[in-house]
Amino acid sequence: MNPDLITTRTRIADLGKPRIIVIGGGFGGLELVKGLKNLKAQVVLFDKYNHHTFQPLLYQVATSGLETSSIVFPFRKRFAQQADFYFRLGEVNQIKPEENYIETSIGGIHYDYLIIATGAATNFYGMEELEKNAMAMKTITDAIKVRNRIIRNLEFALLTDDKAVMNSLMDFVIVGGGPTGVELAGALSELKRNVFPKDYTELDLSQMDIHLVEAGPRLLNGMSAKASEKALEYLKKMGVKVHLNLAVKSYNGYEVAFNNGEKILTRTLVWAAGVKGNPIHGLREECLAKGNRIKVDQFNRVKGYENIFALGDVAAMEGDSKFPNGHPMMAPPAMQQGALLAQNLKRTIASKPMKPFAYKDKGSMATVGRNKAVVDMKTFKMQGLIAWYIWMFVHLISIIGFRNKVFTFFSWVWSYFSYDRSNRLIIGRPKEEI
Amino acid sequence: MNPDLITTRTRIADLGKPRIIVIGGGFGGLELVKGLKNLKAQVVLFDKYNHHTFQPLLYQVATSGLETSSIVFPFRKRFAQQADFYFRLGEVNQIKPEENYIETSIGGIHYDYLIIATGAATNFYGMEELEKNAMAMKTITDAIKVRNRIIRNLEFALLTDDKAVMNSLMDFVIVGGGPTGVELAGALSELKRNVFPKDYTELDLSQMDIHLVEAGPRLLNGMSAKASEKALEYLKKMGVKVHLNLAVKSYNGYEVAFNNGEKILTRTLVWAAGVKGNPIHGLREECLAKGNRIKVDQFNRVKGYENIFALGDVAAMEGDSKFPNGHPMMAPPAMQQGALLAQNLKRTIASKPMKPFAYKDKGSMATVGRNKAVVDMKTFKMQGLIAWYIWMFVHLISIIGFRNKVFTFFSWVWSYFSYDRSNRLIIGRPKEEI
Repeated sequence: MNPDLITTRTRIADLGKPRIIVIGGGFGGLELVKGLKNLKAQVVLFDKYNHHTFQPLLYQVATSGLETSSIVFPFRKRFAQQADFYFRLGEVNQIKPEENYIETSIGGIHYDYLIIATGAATNFYGMEELEKNAMAMKTITDAIKVRNRIIRNLEFALLTDDKAVMNSLMDFVIVGGGPTGVELAGALSELKRNVFPKDYTELDLSQMDIHLVEAGPRLLNGMSAKASEKALEYLKKMGVKVHLNLAVKSYNGYEVAFNNGEKILTRTLVWAAGVKGNPIHGLREECLAKGNRIKVDQFNRVKGYENIFALGDVAAMEGDSKFPNGHPMMAPPAMQQGALLAQNLKRTIASKPMKPFAYKDKGSMATVGRNKAVVDMKTFKMQGLIAWYIWMFVHLISIIGFRNKVFTFFSWVWSYFSYDRSNRLIIGRPKEEI
Repeated sequence: MNPDLITTRTRIADLGKPRIIVIGGGFGGLELVKGLKNLKAQVVLFDKYNHHTFQPLLYQVATSGLETSSIVFPFRKRFAQQADFYFRLGEVNQIKPEENYIETSIGGIHYDYLIIATGAATNFYGMEELEKNAMAMKTITDAIKVRNRIIRNLEFALLTDDKAVMNSLMDFVIVGGGPTGVELAGALSELKRNVFPKDYTELDLSQMDIHLVEAGPRLLNGMSAKASEKALEYLKKMGVKVHLNLAVKSYNGYEVAFNNGEKILTRTLVWAAGVKGNPIHGLREECLAKGNRIKVDQFNRVKGYENIFALGDVAAMEGDSKFPNGHPMMAPPAMQQGALLAQNLKRTIASKPMKPFAYKDKGSMATVGRNKAVVDMKTFKMQGLIAWYIWMFVHLISIIGFRNKVFTFFSWVWSYFSYDRSNRLIIGRPKEEI
């Protein structure tokens, strides 16, 4: 009797139908699997986690506004009704295209069609010291770590008279002026203003500085100039110290140095300044594009392969003149590609020609704080209260699951009227991060 | 500039008032701190966590029914309005009674009155192998670990054809027939019946066995014979295999051996079979009673000390003829002792005599499953649906915080009508337990 759990079998039944393997259940992968319903094919989803994560709201988990469970959804529950769907909890380590075979942490398996939807990873641009000491914001675990860190730092800040040590604990540096950075900085400043003064009467909270650092000349680079301007104005009004045209040179966990020679003491540097594709070993070298993404044609087909596709953040599609380096690494292109690829796989299996992808940019948005958001739509641009309502509405309908929508809505209403953030908890073993 | 965080200062201001230090914010400690409001004294609460945990509902977190945040409450929020209250996140390592001084993980501090409310720890009765391999159910982290383990085991069970390996993954052994064991076994059987068949169509769930093992002759030993009988009947009806008069001899993480020679293969043994007091070093040896509890008199004063008190699970009070070995290690005695001790400290500081403690046993209750609970009150005993309503009502009003009550209530209503348990998530790093 061997008590060893390690198995070399994925144990996926052979149904005598085409087998479509999807790696990764993010926005793109999920949309794809959904679209493959009713196709006479076996659909296998591999993911490292047993749940989808609604990444756009991770920053609210990190700032005690939302519960983790409100923004995640178990894959098995999502696709319980879908025939011939298989989920496997595991990591895919290697593709062997010549054998139509993948190797995973739970064994190897053949595919007829392979779709790589592994998304993005945080890009530290090779700065190892930074990577070691900075915090990322890509997973639920990351968000809980940030939450633990923020609260623990304030508990420690109480204990010292040393100004430098105190500042290193009470100052927070967020790098990256995209939506994650802007939203996190805004949420943190609301904690500083509305919540921490009640919790930490022993601390002088005017000492708490929130720095938002952006290497480019403006915030929310993907949005309109007006949106950037307003976001900057809102953040400044909320007391966030915004630094434009400033880049991080190094961070040792205690002191961050910038390219202009300035330094800031901080024990918390959240790195939201870059992502890169998260490809899988085994594809030909020439398939890789800038930013570690996989080159695909307009059918999301990986260059040089007939039955391997990539979509979403990990895919850099060629042929869209507006986006010569691939579409923005955000949910909407991934979802649209997932939906079309499902149709194209159906067409392929029915021996019909595939349709090329055309990105419909429906606009983008970011929230800065209470009553403050910026929205760029195709037909209108808007900032302030109504934009904030739109932001909340769009995010609520996008969260998967009715229960999650209700809980999130209720949490928001509660926070709005109480000015409170209820989940300010350090969860995990007392001496560890999580 | 020293980036080292370790401090030797608790940094608690000297207010020129008596300093009351409370170690532990469980049910007893919380009630005590609450009762000390308006006393002209400085009240300092030390806890390893920054939040109170509502332990009676941990089993619902472990079985995906409730979110962690619904059953915890930050201390700073609870006492934000209380003057001269100080919270410190830290562990108390040593008491030096002759100096009225404690040593903690964040430095030393003097006290005028010291109250030990450190509660209980899981008691493995010296069985080291068992302690290493079994799971406990005392903290939020424990509950999340159990949840992760249950779900991960089913994911692994899919992957094997080896019946023994599969059974070790699909069988769960819960040891201890008290409320935690009974409630956990019941909740697990509802997952097996209502949730897992939809999630794990590839598994033969009739292979999933839930064993509840009790060394004594009946379940719910602290309750009436009728309650024990009914709980047993309910659990059997729900498919739980209840073993009475059976004790664990050893558990190596894969196979549990019992005192009658029987063996069960399981990778999940939840140990809810015993608790022991969780005292602090530095008290005289003769203060310790059976079960690692601290002997106290009827004023909760530790034997032989004038200004050191202990209450709740960690205290074994002498002089109550009904409970010669101290009161039951449950929330009600702790809360009643905390409330009275607050009054007694006020009386002591006002140079008035203290009042002796008299335990008011208001009864006890346990839930087994949907529509099924047992309630023993002083004036009536009841089982079934109405008992279940009473159980829910009492627990709802006991949970701290209006928001937590609403979220818990909503979760229960949701689960009741959907037969679903929404939080079936593996949270944490993919390859680790949490």
